Amino acid sequence: MTKLKNDTFLRALLRQPTDYTPIWMMRQAGRYLPEYNQTRERAGSFLGLCKNPDFATEVTLQPLARFPLDAAILFSDILTVPDAMGLGLYFSQGEGPKFERPLRDEWEIRDLTVPDPDTHLRYVMDAVTQIRRALNNEVPLIGFSGSPWTLACYMVEGGSSDDYAMVKTMLYSRPELLHRILDVNAQAVTAYLNAQIEAGAQAVMIFDSWGGVLSHAAYREFSLAYLERIVAGLKREHDGEKVPVILFTKGGGLWIESIAATGCDAIGLDWTMDLGVARKLVGNRVALQGNLDPTVLFSNPEVIRQETEKVLASYGSGSGHVFNLGHGISQHTPPENAAALVEAVHELSRKYH
Amino acid sequence: MTKLKNDTFLRALLRQPTDYTPIWMMRQAGRYLPEYNQTRERAGSFLGLCKNPDFATEVTLQPLARFPLDAAILFSDILTVPDAMGLGLYFSQGEGPKFERPLRDEWEIRDLTVPDPDTHLRYVMDAVTQIRRALNNEVPLIGFSGSPWTLACYMVEGGSSDDYAMVKTMLYSRPELLHRILDVNAQAVTAYLNAQIEAGAQAVMIFDSWGGVLSHAAYREFSLAYLERIVAGLKREHDGEKVPVILFTKGGGLWIESIAATGCDAIGLDWTMDLGVARKLVGNRVALQGNLDPTVLFSNPEVIRQETEKVLASYGSGSGHVFNLGHGISQHTPPENAAALVEAVHELSRKYH
Repeated sequence: MTKLKNDTFLRALLRQPTDYTPIWMMRQAGRYLPEYNQTRERAGSFLGLCKNPDFATEVTLQPLARFPLDAAILFSDILTVPDAMGLGLYFSQGEGPKFERPLRDEWEIRDLTVPDPDTHLRYVMDAVTQIRRALNNEVPLIGFSGSPWTLACYMVEGGSSDDYAMVKTMLYSRPELLHRILDVNAQAVTAYLNAQIEAGAQAVMIFDSWGGVLSHAAYREFSLAYLERIVAGLKREHDGEKVPVILFTKGGGLWIESIAATGCDAIGLDWTMDLGVARKLVGNRVALQGNLDPTVLFSNPEVIRQETEKVLASYGSGSGHVFNLGHGISQHTPPENAAALVEAVHELSRKYH
Repeated sequence: MTKLKNDTFLRALLRQPTDYTPIWMMRQAGRYLPEYNQTRERAGSFLGLCKNPDFATEVTLQPLARFPLDAAILFSDILTVPDAMGLGLYFSQGEGPKFERPLRDEWEIRDLTVPDPDTHLRYVMDAVTQIRRALNNEVPLIGFSGSPWTLACYMVEGGSSDDYAMVKTMLYSRPELLHRILDVNAQAVTAYLNAQIEAGAQAVMIFDSWGGVLSHAAYREFSLAYLERIVAGLKREHDGEKVPVILFTKGGGLWIESIAATGCDAIGLDWTMDLGVARKLVGNRVALQGNLDPTVLFSNPEVIRQETEKVLASYGSGSGHVFNLGHGISQHTPPENAAALVEAVHELSRKYH
């Protein structure tokens, strides 16, 4: 196997010395790029992009052709696993992801099974293999999945929600049913991410997008406990290289000490938490990824530079920081502002290393 | 002036000894009560309720007729102040509050003026006076307003938003314009709350519903700094009685030490933060109000009792805790579950006092 030409991202996740702070952007292959919208039109839909390895490879590489990013991330969706369980993922205009057959009856929950990643999720593994080939060892490829709790939110609600009333009613009234769903999800996500690692993903990230809607106690019981099980079950080495694991609970800043205790390599943070405060709390246990407010990219290169410097300064000197946005990049972002961000991070971070 | 028959709520806010933990519920006069819906129908609309002191008095008292709550809260909206500035508050079905004339031009921002509470907001003061009379000193009356930042969100966006792109673009690109809005808002909220206090409000609460969407640094500069100015400008005593001030930043758990430093008497907390952790961080500086997840009320009296006990235990022994939900009660709550909560708090909390 050939050596990576740029392994800055992986080194930072493992808290090894680097020359500068690496950067990638959540949702970097997305609607803010005109070339993405063109490919999506050819594919017919978002799921058409995800499920066709040629299209998935094409859009994964698009942001890297524009910006000197330090990592690529598999183009896919956080909800592929419940789709493979048979719930029927679809996207309705302006309303985000939905399931045709959400979990409505106890027998449906009892009948849930762990999908085999090599059959029902073959298209993902094919995309990973093909993207790795196309990347030609320039930068590492990140694989990912939604967290068991976040998957359960969509599986029970059937889509996104303001208050997650249905899944929380289950949590408080029928916790054993929710634990059954979470148990299957945790097994499925573990198998799915391990298959991605075997197919070539060089780091993996778990998106706990809705962990932040839980109470502190419910988060531990219904989200974190399952994240911990997944971390313990992942292949942490492949082809002689370490495969770092990043956990990202949106709105989880209050809980980072317990997230760090799961055994993950890095924690993703949204913009509500000061990186310096976070670093003090987690010590040397994990790296930190984040955390610029993506709306900063609506301003201009000068402001972007100032705000980038603030994020870098808040983390301070030394390794262990991967620069990112605190949430996915908005479709309304001017691409030249994303370029300004990548340039600012690379240039301004050198003095901290 | 006659003594309050039940001053438990005020004593708890001032961290004085009480026999039990007092409780009220955010949005306790609301759509989960059939009698509220009947009055609202007679009034024609939500704003029709707010702007007519007879209706406002009637719905304010409805939850107290059902449950032995320890406080009443003025029936009104957090956005009355910008409405009085001329922005034209209205409610569109299922989309929440909106403004007919959001701030779109610089001259509109320069022309903003502080509304006189005794003319444009006279209907609020009349409601306060009338509610106080109707309450007959049974329990104290809480007055309230939205925070300068939360008002600015609606004034600039024209309604609620997923990402607050417009107001955050202003924050990062034209901060001086946003500071101008916030400065007027802070003056207006101070005058408005002082007028409520003079009209008879015995405690006041500021709802910073959208503070949690800001970065840690932006929160301090664009929300907290203005909350601090308001706290410093409020009448803290009226008719020989202390008037406690409660600050509630939804999603502000990470920042409670700086919120406590504003000089407020109490901090409202949503359900993401453990009250015991919060209490350690703020020490004896402030009381804490919260923080049951309102979705617990979708379960049943037995679960409600267990979850109530957990919240009480997390705060622990001694005064300084006002029980509340971490967010407004949902319209889908069975009223008998709200009754079970009030009963559980009163009964289970005695051992902690």
